[in-house]
Amino acid sequence: MTLEAVERIGPVDAAWLERARARQLELTKPPLSLGRLEEVANRMAAIQQTLAPVVRHPRIVVFAADHGVCAEGVNPYPQAVTAQMVMNFLRGGAAINALARAAEIELEIVDAGVATEIPYREGLIARPVAAGTRNFCREAAMTREQAMAALSLGFEMAERACAAGCTLLGIGEMGIGNTTAASAVTAALSGLAAATVIGRGTGADEDCMAKKRAAVERALALHGQEMPGAIDILERVGGFEIGAMAGLCLGAAATGCAVLVDGFIATAAAALAVRLQANVRDYLIAAHRSTEPGQAPLLEILGQRPLLDLEMRLGEGTGAALAVPMVRAAVAAFTGMATFASAGVSEASVEEPA
Amino acid sequence: MTLEAVERIGPVDAAWLERARARQLELTKPPLSLGRLEEVANRMAAIQQTLAPVVRHPRIVVFAADHGVCAEGVNPYPQAVTAQMVMNFLRGGAAINALARAAEIELEIVDAGVATEIPYREGLIARPVAAGTRNFCREAAMTREQAMAALSLGFEMAERACAAGCTLLGIGEMGIGNTTAASAVTAALSGLAAATVIGRGTGADEDCMAKKRAAVERALALHGQEMPGAIDILERVGGFEIGAMAGLCLGAAATGCAVLVDGFIATAAAALAVRLQANVRDYLIAAHRSTEPGQAPLLEILGQRPLLDLEMRLGEGTGAALAVPMVRAAVAAFTGMATFASAGVSEASVEEPA
Repeated sequence: MTLEAVERIGPVDAAWLERARARQLELTKPPLSLGRLEEVANRMAAIQQTLAPVVRHPRIVVFAADHGVCAEGVNPYPQAVTAQMVMNFLRGGAAINALARAAEIELEIVDAGVATEIPYREGLIARPVAAGTRNFCREAAMTREQAMAALSLGFEMAERACAAGCTLLGIGEMGIGNTTAASAVTAALSGLAAATVIGRGTGADEDCMAKKRAAVERALALHGQEMPGAIDILERVGGFEIGAMAGLCLGAAATGCAVLVDGFIATAAAALAVRLQANVRDYLIAAHRSTEPGQAPLLEILGQRPLLDLEMRLGEGTGAALAVPMVRAAVAAFTGMATFASAGVSEASVEEPA
Repeated sequence: MTLEAVERIGPVDAAWLERARARQLELTKPPLSLGRLEEVANRMAAIQQTLAPVVRHPRIVVFAADHGVCAEGVNPYPQAVTAQMVMNFLRGGAAINALARAAEIELEIVDAGVATEIPYREGLIARPVAAGTRNFCREAAMTREQAMAALSLGFEMAERACAAGCTLLGIGEMGIGNTTAASAVTAALSGLAAATVIGRGTGADEDCMAKKRAAVERALALHGQEMPGAIDILERVGGFEIGAMAGLCLGAAATGCAVLVDGFIATAAAALAVRLQANVRDYLIAAHRSTEPGQAPLLEILGQRPLLDLEMRLGEGTGAALAVPMVRAAVAAFTGMATFASAGVSEASVEEPA
């Protein structure tokens, strides 16, 4: 990934959006009655520059990495769970595996920087940037080179997916402690206080919550003046999976592929990508509303409202997986419905019915 | 359908709900982190009385019928559109066809009482109760016998589906003018005023809205004292497709099958079924939040919050179709995930991570 490639990313063509909206009005349904499905279909049409968009080989890429900030006691699960869950993904036993199977979604599991050993590795895409980040309460989470490597990893995964014919990507993550990193990223992006951008994550109790807030406050005190740009934020308080997900958003936009953005942590990554290049917004579809309070300011940066709100708080790309059938449905209606003219159905009238 | 069969409908077994909840805690995810998917899976387990529930042959039944109240000018579309849309369903060109194809859902189209001729009939299940209801602003919409026939039609469709191995049904409808009938049903069920239970339907302008309100007010003035029970409401201000959808809910509950309830009109039918037999509630899953204000009091009767809110206002079972992949996902996670023990994943702890 080069910063020139990121700079070259253009917005979707507004003329195609208009053509798609006009086409929607010809289909046998009251105008706009498919609601948000129409928005999604119109965007898929504009991204693919056709009135016959397709959802082909939908793929969710799950990036796993560890976080030095775990040393602050911010998470009720031991850090070893990151590697254990990676093995669970590889063996097909996690929630994202079940949801991907149910909706016929390809799944890729990427080690972007897990700290502990992963004894079972079959099917793993092993591209660790390093063995976990450093504790951002004490120093920068990563070096500039590591930040660029994480972004490049995601960018490359997007390019590979697009080259394989994929037209819809999803981003997911696993990383014990990564809601704390995402909260720090959110505070840095939004200027909001630590207390308003932290949440219970996978199930933090009051003690954990206090530690999360303190960790984000310490990070802001230490790095607050050193984060003018998105890459600075990633370097100082981010994570390798967060950087990789941001890179995937950039790569997908650069190659003209839509991206379903999962919950809080994925939204933080997508917001970093948008801060780096505002046109990326057009290629993103927010999939699931998180129970984390920090997601709302990030969604404002994305200019999006999520399609789904099923009160999940799991990550792994599970929200993105559930949104894949919604995108399929949106595109199926757009491309598979009859028109008023072809079906011989009367349009709305202000006259009295006969 | 006999009223004795309706009376015999029992609630789902609370012990199976408890077993399902206990099983959820063993799966490799933070407790309750799959949110509403867990509720849905637990209910499917309780309905099927197994920890290995299945979504088999999901089927949406779309009932079409016409409404005498159209004579009051309540709808911007001519009444002939009901028959035109039935033909569109049969030819596969409507939104529900596209969504059903996209999600591999069986679709049945039933003429429950269309008023005008349906020239193309291939695949139609022709069971019209009568050629449309009468204008409930002037007289009862239907006779008692017709109300029972509509309920029986739906009950029978549910029995047939269950006999064919279906474990998940959805209800949908088509009927020009049926938001006005559903609003009258809602007012009668809830005691709310006409003005609070009417909405724009497929796209009513101010003039149509005034006529809808006036029609519901006249209906309540004429029939208000004659509607102590659910069947009375159906007879006085209902519709044949509304009765058939209510009957399908009853039949599904009687045979132990879950039902996805579409938008406003389907929810009015489901609420009639619940008013007739409160235990039916356990078998219903509200699929989609309608933009119609009348749905909220009906959802209270159902004791449900819809899974989806995609700002659709189309009917046809489109909301139910979109919820089918959600139920599939819920069941897939419940039955396909590894346990903490089997996967060797550590559970949450209050200790400091290593």
